[in-house]
Amino acid sequence: MSFDPDLSDPLVAKAVELRDVFAKDAVARDKRGGRPIEQVRLLKESGLLSIQIAKEHGGAGASWLSVLRAVREFARVDGSLGHIYGYHFLPINILNFRGTAEQKGRLLGRSAQEQWFWGNSGNPMSKSLFGRLAGDEWVIDGYRPFSSGTHVADYMTVAWEDVASGERTFAAIPASYPGVEIKDDWDGIGQRQTGSGTVTFDKVRIARDEVLSAPVGTPFTTLIPLIQQSVLLNVFVGSAQGALTEGRAYTVGTSRPWVDSGVARHTDDPWVKRHYGELFIKTKAATELADMAARSFDAAWARGSALTAEERGRAAIDIAAANVVAGEVGLDVSSRIFEVTGARSAVNAYGFDRFWRNVRTHTLHNPAEYKARTVGAWFLTGEFPEPDLYR
Amino acid sequence: MSFDPDLSDPLVAKAVELRDVFAKDAVARDKRGGRPIEQVRLLKESGLLSIQIAKEHGGAGASWLSVLRAVREFARVDGSLGHIYGYHFLPINILNFRGTAEQKGRLLGRSAQEQWFWGNSGNPMSKSLFGRLAGDEWVIDGYRPFSSGTHVADYMTVAWEDVASGERTFAAIPASYPGVEIKDDWDGIGQRQTGSGTVTFDKVRIARDEVLSAPVGTPFTTLIPLIQQSVLLNVFVGSAQGALTEGRAYTVGTSRPWVDSGVARHTDDPWVKRHYGELFIKTKAATELADMAARSFDAAWARGSALTAEERGRAAIDIAAANVVAGEVGLDVSSRIFEVTGARSAVNAYGFDRFWRNVRTHTLHNPAEYKARTVGAWFLTGEFPEPDLYR
Amino acid sequence: MSFDPDLSDPLVAKAVELRDVFAKDAVARDKRGGRPIEQVRLLKESGLLSIQIAKEHGGAGASWLSVLRAVREFARVDGSLGHIYGYHFLPINILNFRGTAEQKGRLLGRSAQEQWFWGNSGNPMSKSLFGRLAGDEWVIDGYRPFSSGTHVADYMTVAWEDVASGERTFAAIPASYPGVEIKDDWDGIGQRQTGSGTVTFDKVRIARDEVLSAPVGTPFTTLIPLIQQSVLLNVFVGSAQGALTEGRAYTVGTSRPWVDSGVARHTDDPWVKRHYGELFIKTKAATELADMAARSFDAAWARGSALTAEERGRAAIDIAAANVVAGEVGLDVSSRIFEVTGARSAVNAYGFDRFWRNVRTHTLHNPAEYKARTVGAWFLTGEFPEPDLYR
Amino acid sequence: MSFDPDLSDPLVAKAVELRDVFAKDAVARDKRGGRPIEQVRLLKESGLLSIQIAKEHGGAGASWLSVLRAVREFARVDGSLGHIYGYHFLPINILNFRGTAEQKGRLLGRSAQEQWFWGNSGNPMSKSLFGRLAGDEWVIDGYRPFSSGTHVADYMTVAWEDVASGERTFAAIPASYPGVEIKDDWDGIGQRQTGSGTVTFDKVRIARDEVLSAPVGTPFTTLIPLIQQSVLLNVFVGSAQGALTEGRAYTVGTSRPWVDSGVARHTDDPWVKRHYGELFIKTKAATELADMAARSFDAAWARGSALTAEERGRAAIDIAAANVVAGEVGLDVSSRIFEVTGARSAVNAYGFDRFWRNVRTHTLHNPAEYKARTVGAWFLTGEFPEPDLYR
Repeated sequence: MSFDPDLSDPLVAKAVELRDVFAKDAVARDKRGGRPIEQVRLLKESGLLSIQIAKEHGGAGASWLSVLRAVREFARVDGSLGHIYGYHFLPINILNFRGTAEQKGRLLGRSAQEQWFWGNSGNPMSKSLFGRLAGDEWVIDGYRPFSSGTHVADYMTVAWEDVASGERTFAAIPASYPGVEIKDDWDGIGQRQTGSGTVTFDKVRIARDEVLSAPVGTPFTTLIPLIQQSVLLNVFVGSAQGALTEGRAYTVGTSRPWVDSGVARHTDDPWVKRHYGELFIKTKAATELADMAARSFDAAWARGSALTAEERGRAAIDIAAANVVAGEVGLDVSSRIFEVTGARSAVNAYGFDRFWRNVRTHTLHNPAEYKARTVGAWFLTGEFPEPDLYR
Repeated sequence: MSFDPDLSDPLVAKAVELRDVFAKDAVARDKRGGRPIEQVRLLKESGLLSIQIAKEHGGAGASWLSVLRAVREFARVDGSLGHIYGYHFLPINILNFRGTAEQKGRLLGRSAQEQWFWGNSGNPMSKSLFGRLAGDEWVIDGYRPFSSGTHVADYMTVAWEDVASGERTFAAIPASYPGVEIKDDWDGIGQRQTGSGTVTFDKVRIARDEVLSAPVGTPFTTLIPLIQQSVLLNVFVGSAQGALTEGRAYTVGTSRPWVDSGVARHTDDPWVKRHYGELFIKTKAATELADMAARSFDAAWARGSALTAEERGRAAIDIAAANVVAGEVGLDVSSRIFEVTGARSAVNAYGFDRFWRNVRTHTLHNPAEYKARTVGAWFLTGEFPEPDLYR
Repeated sequence: MSFDPDLSDPLVAKAVELRDVFAKDAVARDKRGGRPIEQVRLLKESGLLSIQIAKEHGGAGASWLSVLRAVREFARVDGSLGHIYGYHFLPINILNFRGTAEQKGRLLGRSAQEQWFWGNSGNPMSKSLFGRLAGDEWVIDGYRPFSSGTHVADYMTVAWEDVASGERTFAAIPASYPGVEIKDDWDGIGQRQTGSGTVTFDKVRIARDEVLSAPVGTPFTTLIPLIQQSVLLNVFVGSAQGALTEGRAYTVGTSRPWVDSGVARHTDDPWVKRHYGELFIKTKAATELADMAARSFDAAWARGSALTAEERGRAAIDIAAANVVAGEVGLDVSSRIFEVTGARSAVNAYGFDRFWRNVRTHTLHNPAEYKARTVGAWFLTGEFPEPDLYR
Repeated sequence: MSFDPDLSDPLVAKAVELRDVFAKDAVARDKRGGRPIEQVRLLKESGLLSIQIAKEHGGAGASWLSVLRAVREFARVDGSLGHIYGYHFLPINILNFRGTAEQKGRLLGRSAQEQWFWGNSGNPMSKSLFGRLAGDEWVIDGYRPFSSGTHVADYMTVAWEDVASGERTFAAIPASYPGVEIKDDWDGIGQRQTGSGTVTFDKVRIARDEVLSAPVGTPFTTLIPLIQQSVLLNVFVGSAQGALTEGRAYTVGTSRPWVDSGVARHTDDPWVKRHYGELFIKTKAATELADMAARSFDAAWARGSALTAEERGRAAIDIAAANVVAGEVGLDVSSRIFEVTGARSAVNAYGFDRFWRNVRTHTLHNPAEYKARTVGAWFLTGEFPEPDLYR
């Protein structure tokens, strides 16, 4: 009822199945942090890890709408799994944009066949990983923070700055590569199983054929940040839906009417009805915008290398708008739900606070302030944002 | 740019054309109140008055999405015209549901052919118009408030209570009917050309063939309030879009940067960008929900007499949700727009305050509190609202 | 009940008396705009025009708390009178700070004795009034917008820029001065009897002894903007109180319960109680902050020429904080009150919309954005704002 | 700077000293939960545990303003200590109202002299502890949830229902009483060291002279809920102040400017200034209302047994109003602070999330909805709330 995912989409239907399995120990895993090993195994088994890989490489060529709806379903019970499942497609598409035909054929093919899980260690906000060319190889040294998903990854992309020129280079390497240490030291207040910690690189030698050096520069090749922003916003929407759905179950099954209420059941209190109505309505609005943005992104994606800067810009605006709403709604719903579940629901046994902690943590990676400025500047002047890390 | 109506829909394209004409004296007409005579003439000329009438009766059988988008376009410049144009379809569909085949054929046929404008004088909140059967005729005596659109109507529906039984009866009569006086005494703070004033009935004799007495009682025949609620919400959405669009023109063309801002143009102030971004984003969300609700209503409508209570309920929930968001957004945007147009914009010459006055006036006809309760009750229990005057 | 002014303060008690007289035709005067002639006569009669003038000059030496509470009482029924009564003390204190002992003795003495009403025509945002020295006299030419209160003034201050140096000079002159034309052309959406229109100066000759040229430059002499900001915020607080009080009377006496409410009286609806509770609580918070800011300002004022920049800064922060809250609350309460008075209350006969129009108009003269930045910069760094026009 | 407690009050000064000690391991203790043993020892050493006990019994007879400001200071770093320190005065005053002169002399005297810490196990929402009279003794059996402070208490009050009549009886007993087991099983998402868990009573025999049976029924004896509500609200205000102060330190010392900001320091971003300004302003408003409410309560308290129902009602309204604002502000500030500390601040090492978890947990013990209804009902009708558990 009410946030019924579109089960006519078999990928979404599969995601829903997994979601219900993930739900079983989501509270315990949130407390524990660390690695969702079993869940990643199930993802591999399900085939969902390759759905967005092109059919020519053995994937399902799924739409972003399908992928992002899967992210959303996972986030309804477990923000971390929504996050790393969605982010898994970032390195895959870094490879898509920057890999040669040979690299794509080889790596995406194996990725699809073997259901690889991908991580990424390329956070560009931190200038902490440098490389130098040594003959045919790069030698890279340093570390990257916020390397989400590497803790459960088979393969990963990495990016470093040339120690001399500052130029950025990308490579795709196995997560078990010699000299690479995935520290799994993330101890966030939320998104606790994302492994968003440090990866250190100790004189790691990167061979030429691991370096991703196909030319980029067209609008199409600037879509990575829009994938990332789309994942973020769907984690928020899923979290709002999850808080609301779990809250409802508690309210209906367990909450007692307020002592002054004069009603027999908590759900008969006009306040409780209104409160759920308000939270549902805003979550519905966020969901509609998320779908709208996903479709907009699919339309841009479908244009491929013909994509113009303006077409890319429209998708960027739609995604930024959806992201602002999703973040606000995620925070608001995950906090206000407690008001209608009540005092006895605020204990660790239920883990209802994980939704707020997850959204609060993840929203910080792109302030609403700047997304709103981007949208406003476009609305005022018609100018689309220059692609950068966050738009 | 930015709220581009779908011009591939010829009805919307026509509405956009008219909107631009209505805009020319919208500020002056808001001040004046009274009757938008010339605008109604243009509506007749355009053919837009018959678009929702079934093709068999000479109409265009347009979707509600088209009709409501036309309402929205008008409301971007003139809330009154959006309102009475939308409400015009209430009496038409009262006739649809309660008229006999003969009445529908005759009256809807003429309505389409002659491009009648319809009003309605049946506000059920006021027990002030009573009838008694005298032989074959009813004689009705009393008045109705809030008779929107009657002041420019060719034809109207009227409803009264039987003085003895309290039972409600409907009829369709010419607006110039003997004994009917349309007082045009509406002096609202907003929606000033809607003619939402009093109609008095002085021993008016209603003939049998004017009485609408086809049997009702199926879910399909309870859709009138959903038409009304849909019109309301699209007036709010259009008003938000209008405030934002007129505000932008002023900000870009006239506003000066704040004295402490340190920027050369007002639009370079990060605050101004963010503010417009926030207002646009919420207006976008309201627009998406309005479209979603219109499609949901079209789906229900398409089911015709096969419509089930549950299918009707789903549309009612979607419309209530969209209505809550539209009202909030309409109020917020129409008030906050002044913050970025600035002190010199708050003068009557520009009439920017009409958007807030319009939305404030029109939102009062169905409190968000009750719409939210309706949605929340359904979310909590799965029960759809019983159809009543407002849902 | 509930916003009981402190009647133990005789000045407040007098203001309350006048307020009740002003209330009688406040709605009509709001519609009409123009000059509140009779009300100014009553102000003169009451003695309230001289209360803040020092005792040595024949005034009452009243605290700012008393003055600002009088502003607030007037604004409960009539934002314009609150505004111009408060602004009346701006020119008086320009004279205080910039006048010589002789000028103060002469002009303040007569002002107190004859109960002058003061206006001001010195808006510094508009570079539109220029002067040149011609021997002993200045000749000034041009105009000033936003010259609140001049339309009913006996005396006024004026400020112009030297055509050559751009330096600003002040003078105090009779409002009926030759060459001065008070156009009374203000047609705002609110604050309609403030006369905030244009004053033109056609080769007006200003004699030496009218020029206010005492040295300024100490923190004490920079307090004018804080008076202005204090007036603004008390107009907002009074407007919120007024909207709430008038709304309550209507709700209790006239509003009908909502059709779905199941209650006999509108005031029995839990929604209506909560809504009034919320609006009262925020208005109470705004009122407490307004009093706190007035006391803070009185403390700064009492320091006289010994006032340090830091002491001045503390008052500026307190006033900015109170102003942000007052503006928000004024807008919110004056708009949301309609939700509990209902559809029939939104007509011009009641004039309930004047509160929103008044606050909306007056808040634009100092954006919350910049006040919040000022407070935030101080909170982050401990640095007080440099005095300027708005802080 | 900025929330400077009034150090001229020696009790507040002492609280500030302790606060700074409590701060040192507040984050670690929040993670751990359980008992703040060392902190309670320091409270005893400080003498703050007896300050509100009347002088005749060896206390300091401090005002509630002093007590509540101490609560607030503790809550700036540790919501749990603010909570249990404030709640400690509930049993003390249950004794005050319900104890005989002999009991008060004996128990309050020893409490002051030995600096007892008091807990309370009397949650009336749970009908789970029953007693029967057996000769001169009561035998009580069952449990109480939410027994805050009992886990570190020397003495406690307990209340049970008569198994036959349902009548409620109170007693004061040592926390180490035979048959009483303090389970210390609280595992809340916040307020983690409050020990708000279960106390079980296994055929506990309560002697006659432990039963508190002085007659109650005057307005004065209904003040316990107002003490409790006052503590709650000051925990919220202190939490907001704490979040803001710790956030500022991090923003100034550690946060980096946003990548798109174009500023050198994060604090130079207009957004960051505005954001801190907004959060400070609302926290300031909450603080002013908290002080107002405390003074209002002190005035009621000072009336002693002469207190009328109306005087009691005024204090109840002031406290409810302050409580609504405090709760909202506490939640908002503790969540939004992250937006300006940034992504790297959302890790457990800093524990910044404890403020939101604390306020979220503690606000659930009295919904804003019902407090607002209480205030609104009074505002509309002039009727003061009937004293009950929460007002």
